[in-house]
Amino acid sequence: MPSRYAKLGVDVKKRGVEAFKERLEVLFPEAFCPIQRDPDAPGRGLVAHTDSAGSKPVQSYLHWRETGDPRWFRGLAQDVVAMNLDDIICVGADPLCFLDYVALNPLKVDKEALLKALAEGFGGCFSTLDRYGVKVLFSGGETADLPDQMRTLDVSGSIFGRVDLEKVVTGQRIREGDLIVGLRSGGRTVYERGENSGIMCNGLTLARLSLMDGEYQRRYPELGEPGGRRYRGRFKFDDYLDELGMTVGEALLSPTRLYAPVVKRILERCGGAVHGLVHNTGGGVTKCLRVGRNIRYVKDHLPDPDPIFLLIQREAGVEWREMFEDYNMGIGFEVIVDAESAEEVLSVADSFKLGAQVIGRCERGEGEKALIIRSRFGVFRYP
Amino acid sequence: MPSRYAKLGVDVKKRGVEAFKERLEVLFPEAFCPIQRDPDAPGRGLVAHTDSAGSKPVQSYLHWRETGDPRWFRGLAQDVVAMNLDDIICVGADPLCFLDYVALNPLKVDKEALLKALAEGFGGCFSTLDRYGVKVLFSGGETADLPDQMRTLDVSGSIFGRVDLEKVVTGQRIREGDLIVGLRSGGRTVYERGENSGIMCNGLTLARLSLMDGEYQRRYPELGEPGGRRYRGRFKFDDYLDELGMTVGEALLSPTRLYAPVVKRILERCGGAVHGLVHNTGGGVTKCLRVGRNIRYVKDHLPDPDPIFLLIQREAGVEWREMFEDYNMGIGFEVIVDAESAEEVLSVADSFKLGAQVIGRCERGEGEKALIIRSRFGVFRYP
Repeated sequence: MPSRYAKLGVDVKKRGVEAFKERLEVLFPEAFCPIQRDPDAPGRGLVAHTDSAGSKPVQSYLHWRETGDPRWFRGLAQDVVAMNLDDIICVGADPLCFLDYVALNPLKVDKEALLKALAEGFGGCFSTLDRYGVKVLFSGGETADLPDQMRTLDVSGSIFGRVDLEKVVTGQRIREGDLIVGLRSGGRTVYERGENSGIMCNGLTLARLSLMDGEYQRRYPELGEPGGRRYRGRFKFDDYLDELGMTVGEALLSPTRLYAPVVKRILERCGGAVHGLVHNTGGGVTKCLRVGRNIRYVKDHLPDPDPIFLLIQREAGVEWREMFEDYNMGIGFEVIVDAESAEEVLSVADSFKLGAQVIGRCERGEGEKALIIRSRFGVFRYP
Repeated sequence: MPSRYAKLGVDVKKRGVEAFKERLEVLFPEAFCPIQRDPDAPGRGLVAHTDSAGSKPVQSYLHWRETGDPRWFRGLAQDVVAMNLDDIICVGADPLCFLDYVALNPLKVDKEALLKALAEGFGGCFSTLDRYGVKVLFSGGETADLPDQMRTLDVSGSIFGRVDLEKVVTGQRIREGDLIVGLRSGGRTVYERGENSGIMCNGLTLARLSLMDGEYQRRYPELGEPGGRRYRGRFKFDDYLDELGMTVGEALLSPTRLYAPVVKRILERCGGAVHGLVHNTGGGVTKCLRVGRNIRYVKDHLPDPDPIFLLIQREAGVEWREMFEDYNMGIGFEVIVDAESAEEVLSVADSFKLGAQVIGRCERGEGEKALIIRSRFGVFRYP
């Protein structure tokens, strides 16, 4: 049965990309990201990655149209930096440089205002990262005026990094008895300016369509594909909900947390005890299935999902099994670690005021990787 | 007065990107691409670049819809590789790795067929390059399902390269008396399978709208922004024109030539005599204004533009002055070289059966960079 998402035209499982995979020579197939050997330095790996802010820019556009304030675009900069940087740190890579790519419909979007907001956003990100010892060169990028292709805009980026092949977090050492420490996507760390809903960058299509009032699409037809897939929510973007502690729009646009400052410290402190790192983007809580070999991940101590996820589930009527595949459900990053070192990981997280807890453990698999989630919403097995 | 292009929603001069520039620390401001110092190797520069195939994918989509044949998407792979690779070689950089990024509307585009065609295209490009000693690692990429943002699709990529700081083609050495050797964008080199119209990747919006029959937009509204900017041409994509020696659609979709094999050989043979390299993408024949300092470029021996440019000019009624800014007009790449070495550059080009000729020279400027084009269509001064 096609999931809710497939019906919306978003292929969460990304079958299509297989066509490219065969062209990639990859050193560590169990690692989170492809690592290639540096042709000029055989002991070093190259890690290159590209990703976008998904459909989050559509929500920013809606806020901008309603308020006239381009600062609603600002958080997208952090979204694309996080979507790229926090993927490559999962293999222990050091980032080198980042490029952004913005494709837009200049007949709808005020390009200058957009680029100014994004430049401020990028500036803020790279300063914050720098303060915590994460150096990323900003290498510029491209802005493409594509009025025929874009209804509104798309914001993506790419990152290049390097890693000593001896220090790669390969995923191969994940083993029975390892603990899974979950790092929260919501709340507020010491290096952030405000509360975060925890939404990150995935599942935004479903979230927007099921929460935002249909009136918006009548007002701005460019918000989406004409026909069929109408907005069917009952909220205005500026409706404040007590359960969220913020407006619905703020919850949808909370920028994806940057985990790099914390993960850097964790790797410094725990080094070889870290067997796996997982950024819970597309695939949500099931993302750990990307790493390791012959392991059954058991997650039976997940925290209660942040309120935005409960709201989306209620309003969209999505099965819980699917919610865990579409959303991070409050855990944006996972550190798979030797049982003895879990406390140390928790203490590093705590020093940043980043919520963290042991959410599960690793068991020996039965030939294949598997994940079991035991939650108050039910027991779910993946894949 | 806004140009034809500004009216179509495409900002050829890219004023918007200035907002980002201030965040870039660049070593050689007169060079074609930004070069940053490698933090781990002070004698080495990093060159990162991202660019798209512009609106060319819209034309591919039209052919695919009309014929059912996804191979019309294949050339877009070469387009994005060329748009990235041939920009960074302009500073003498060696490419290291390439990523692609495809954003699409999966409700319109057959994703699997598209990705298969692109994978074949990338495979072909990297094999050809490899055969001529240009090694580029293909590092994968991302396919984003963005049905609300994309009417059809956007294909972009990013590349990462390195250069010894002592070998950078900085543009600083361009001087009075240097000759400008133009490399053709049309025709067929020894490493290509068919005749090329020379169109490359810029100016496609104007070209499509002024050549393609309005019937197509009625049939496929997703070809463009609704209203106003209708297709107003009188050709079907498969109309064969004697003057083109191919169909109109083939002329619009000729893949951007890869110059890297030839430029590599030129740098090996002529080394320090090469003072500037220019890839005539956005900005067309005026692109040389990006490099050098206090130089007046005089182009008075341009070849007659390839037939596709004459056709676009005639059908769109564009001023010649603007044609030289929007299109490469038959010269896709320029080598600015010591007068004594021009013959050697021509002989390298000839060994690849790549058309080439001295198209002009460098004179001392009057404080600013300037370009004079003397052609049978008139004399034009830029900026």
